[in-house]
Amino acid sequence: MQIDVNCDLGESYGHFKVGYDAEIMPFITSANVACGFHGGDPNVMAETVELARRNGVAVGAHPGYPDLMGFGRREMGLSKEEVKNIVVYQVGALEAFAKAAGVELQHVKPHGALYNAAAANEGYSEAVIEALKAIDPKLIMFALANSGLAKMAVEAGLRVAYEVFADRAYNSDGTLVSRGLRGSVIEAPRLVAERAVKMVKEKKVVAVDGRTVEFDGVHTICVHGDTLNAVDLAKYLRKALASAGIELVPVSRLV
Amino acid sequence: MQIDVNCDLGESYGHFKVGYDAEIMPFITSANVACGFHGGDPNVMAETVELARRNGVAVGAHPGYPDLMGFGRREMGLSKEEVKNIVVYQVGALEAFAKAAGVELQHVKPHGALYNAAAANEGYSEAVIEALKAIDPKLIMFALANSGLAKMAVEAGLRVAYEVFADRAYNSDGTLVSRGLRGSVIEAPRLVAERAVKMVKEKKVVAVDGRTVEFDGVHTICVHGDTLNAVDLAKYLRKALASAGIELVPVSRLV
Amino acid sequence: MQIDVNCDLGESYGHFKVGYDAEIMPFITSANVACGFHGGDPNVMAETVELARRNGVAVGAHPGYPDLMGFGRREMGLSKEEVKNIVVYQVGALEAFAKAAGVELQHVKPHGALYNAAAANEGYSEAVIEALKAIDPKLIMFALANSGLAKMAVEAGLRVAYEVFADRAYNSDGTLVSRGLRGSVIEAPRLVAERAVKMVKEKKVVAVDGRTVEFDGVHTICVHGDTLNAVDLAKYLRKALASAGIELVPVSRLV
Amino acid sequence: MQIDVNCDLGESYGHFKVGYDAEIMPFITSANVACGFHGGDPNVMAETVELARRNGVAVGAHPGYPDLMGFGRREMGLSKEEVKNIVVYQVGALEAFAKAAGVELQHVKPHGALYNAAAANEGYSEAVIEALKAIDPKLIMFALANSGLAKMAVEAGLRVAYEVFADRAYNSDGTLVSRGLRGSVIEAPRLVAERAVKMVKEKKVVAVDGRTVEFDGVHTICVHGDTLNAVDLAKYLRKALASAGIELVPVSRLV
Repeated sequence: MQIDVNCDLGESYGHFKVGYDAEIMPFITSANVACGFHGGDPNVMAETVELARRNGVAVGAHPGYPDLMGFGRREMGLSKEEVKNIVVYQVGALEAFAKAAGVELQHVKPHGALYNAAAANEGYSEAVIEALKAIDPKLIMFALANSGLAKMAVEAGLRVAYEVFADRAYNSDGTLVSRGLRGSVIEAPRLVAERAVKMVKEKKVVAVDGRTVEFDGVHTICVHGDTLNAVDLAKYLRKALASAGIELVPVSRLV
Repeated sequence: MQIDVNCDLGESYGHFKVGYDAEIMPFITSANVACGFHGGDPNVMAETVELARRNGVAVGAHPGYPDLMGFGRREMGLSKEEVKNIVVYQVGALEAFAKAAGVELQHVKPHGALYNAAAANEGYSEAVIEALKAIDPKLIMFALANSGLAKMAVEAGLRVAYEVFADRAYNSDGTLVSRGLRGSVIEAPRLVAERAVKMVKEKKVVAVDGRTVEFDGVHTICVHGDTLNAVDLAKYLRKALASAGIELVPVSRLV
Repeated sequence: MQIDVNCDLGESYGHFKVGYDAEIMPFITSANVACGFHGGDPNVMAETVELARRNGVAVGAHPGYPDLMGFGRREMGLSKEEVKNIVVYQVGALEAFAKAAGVELQHVKPHGALYNAAAANEGYSEAVIEALKAIDPKLIMFALANSGLAKMAVEAGLRVAYEVFADRAYNSDGTLVSRGLRGSVIEAPRLVAERAVKMVKEKKVVAVDGRTVEFDGVHTICVHGDTLNAVDLAKYLRKALASAGIELVPVSRLV
Repeated sequence: MQIDVNCDLGESYGHFKVGYDAEIMPFITSANVACGFHGGDPNVMAETVELARRNGVAVGAHPGYPDLMGFGRREMGLSKEEVKNIVVYQVGALEAFAKAAGVELQHVKPHGALYNAAAANEGYSEAVIEALKAIDPKLIMFALANSGLAKMAVEAGLRVAYEVFADRAYNSDGTLVSRGLRGSVIEAPRLVAERAVKMVKEKKVVAVDGRTVEFDGVHTICVHGDTLNAVDLAKYLRKALASAGIELVPVSRLV
């Protein structure tokens, strides 16, 4: 039994440092590297890709909306064509740093409001899928398990990694409870680890209303990297998964 | 006898339209496409690459400083590492649009203040050369004929296109007369065409002080695309070169 | 009988020039000057305010969303607090240029998607109103005639200019027909002028469904300045208003 | 005997948090608030001004170059006119937040590369001086003690606060040792405090070559606020100044 653990990294910008990239890198298998729109800049991208390479962590692109001030978390009303183009742009930019570091780009995971919009909005799902096919059809698409994007990307013939969030509460329709709501983020490491193990072994999670969500599949678990607590959590999670007999591997070996 | 004619294109940004891209495309053989830092945005890049493809014009990246307000024409005091990284970023982004359009990226031409700095400053020359080698060593480097960058790129084993400017006055050391100075830009189409033919046939130009500059080689002539007059000039130049028995071909066939 | 004619100006950004500011300035009485977020930059703002001063045109601030790439025409999901703060910021910046030029800031007109959102969304209306009251309660608020913003600003004790658009089609509820729809923009100068005269004299316009919209008041007519045709239209409109016995005056004399 | 202690604050940007603003505010008398170009955004500006008000700290504008990625620390080759305009813009924006909070804007302190350029480059000194006079001639200009800007601002009739840096090493010509050089920043609180007391009492500092720099005057001491250590240092400094019989007051009472 195997699973990938991914984390959003490289989100610093110039003088503005965020995240604990170096600390968390040893505990994950896939890094989603910001591409300069919601966070990240060319120097940070080069450093983050190099850091991943040294840690044997697979590299993916983490494209977001062109909204640095809002950290890509605000919906922006882009056209489908614009969504496709901002994804092509950012993935291309990151792929160049991957080439420069001698590693292959493994995956693409949309960021923030784009992740949510792509999961739910058919036009945006298509836009992101078209972008990947246009750049490199071997790239793996990260998509929220059970989401419209996940289904459409599979139908489009892409390699798709079904993603789950061990530290986020779920609604019974398989969507995440909004960040703004109380209880949306789960912090206790033991609880997070228990959920993760259940997600991987049973492909299930208990939603906030007590119902059980069954996942179509579970290939990668997202952990957060922007707090010191997150580092401890990632470390704890890794141990808990190992104790449960689950091996951590980059997602390219799973889909 | 053959020559490439290149032009800076795709410099519009969102609602802000500049240049006569569609009008000038039929008269050139290589397009230098802005990459989103000094001008250009993801939508404009997609459109410009597609426009070049339809016109059979070879596509190159035209990376600049991260200074949209200054159009990449202000020196910014970047470190060598930063220069390398902004070139990797922008070339990667454009390459993704080239792939999406099914064309191969032919060349890289730094823009504005970066072009000038890379021509004259050894650290910056190295940075740009390292960026190209890191991304794809088959990419052709555009460099001002006789410049330090041209020499260093050849020594580094890159394919290098020596570039001349038919509509710009030259100093006798082979550098261009600064835009700010009177007479720096030559507008009369006949004069520009005469200079171009001489540049290609004799590999020479007469500098502002009357001395003759001899070029190490001449592979590509730059024309401007940001005025309606520029379109006429490109058209006139194309005819004049043909009359002189000089064929226009993309630079990939010349270096 | 008097009316103000306003126009959005100063929307160029660095090297990117848009609009026919100098050409249209002689035919208007109030200038809405972009403040650097959707368009405009500090140099352009200084020049535009000076141009208005020389033409005896009253100066207003035209704040927009922080979205240069989208020209402030995309909804961005800002919080009420953020809307207030981006308005305070931009109005303050423009007010400083007004002071520097020795003119008084007359009014504030939100731009693009912010204009539409402030007209319809109560929270945003409040945000814009609070911003004006916080900076200077004597500033005149431009608001779409009959809109929620217009009513709320009056109740809040602000000076409010009811704005109409002579060259835009209306829905029968008093809102503008969306730009994307056919027939949303009226181009024939004679038709625009006829509508304008009727709007001023009768405080009415015929909507696209044939019904008549009655305005609570009409203090200022918006004309566009971004096409050469717009200059002719402004010139024609000015004559037509004069012929109808309507005098053009800055809106500060009307509210 | 009195002195002002100032600190650069409000430099966070959106999701990107920097500095220990709330922690350091109780120990200073003047806050230099970033204005959105090198750091700061409208929300951060509103919060920072409010925080200063609650702490009884005087508010100043801290305008920088339009270079968020470089944190305003890179020289950009702006024209004198551009420097004037970016200062007018940013000071105006901050002044609006001051008004909104019911406090008066006390001073202007250029940031980073602009601070250095304005101190040394006559054209830039003039530009900054013209900006202040254009907006509000009662604004106090912060200028490096003994600098060209300090002298020119006095001659221009402005209120000028001579600024010294207790935690930075000095060259014997009164300029600061560049940040890049070893020993340029002094970290030991006791040493910093000793230097500060000497600066205030004797108007002198010992330069790195052992010579003594005599200041034309000392009105304000700059402390840094971007490390937790800085908070301790500010606290220690405040005590040391008190022990030496020096009272901390906003600079408006000193010039």
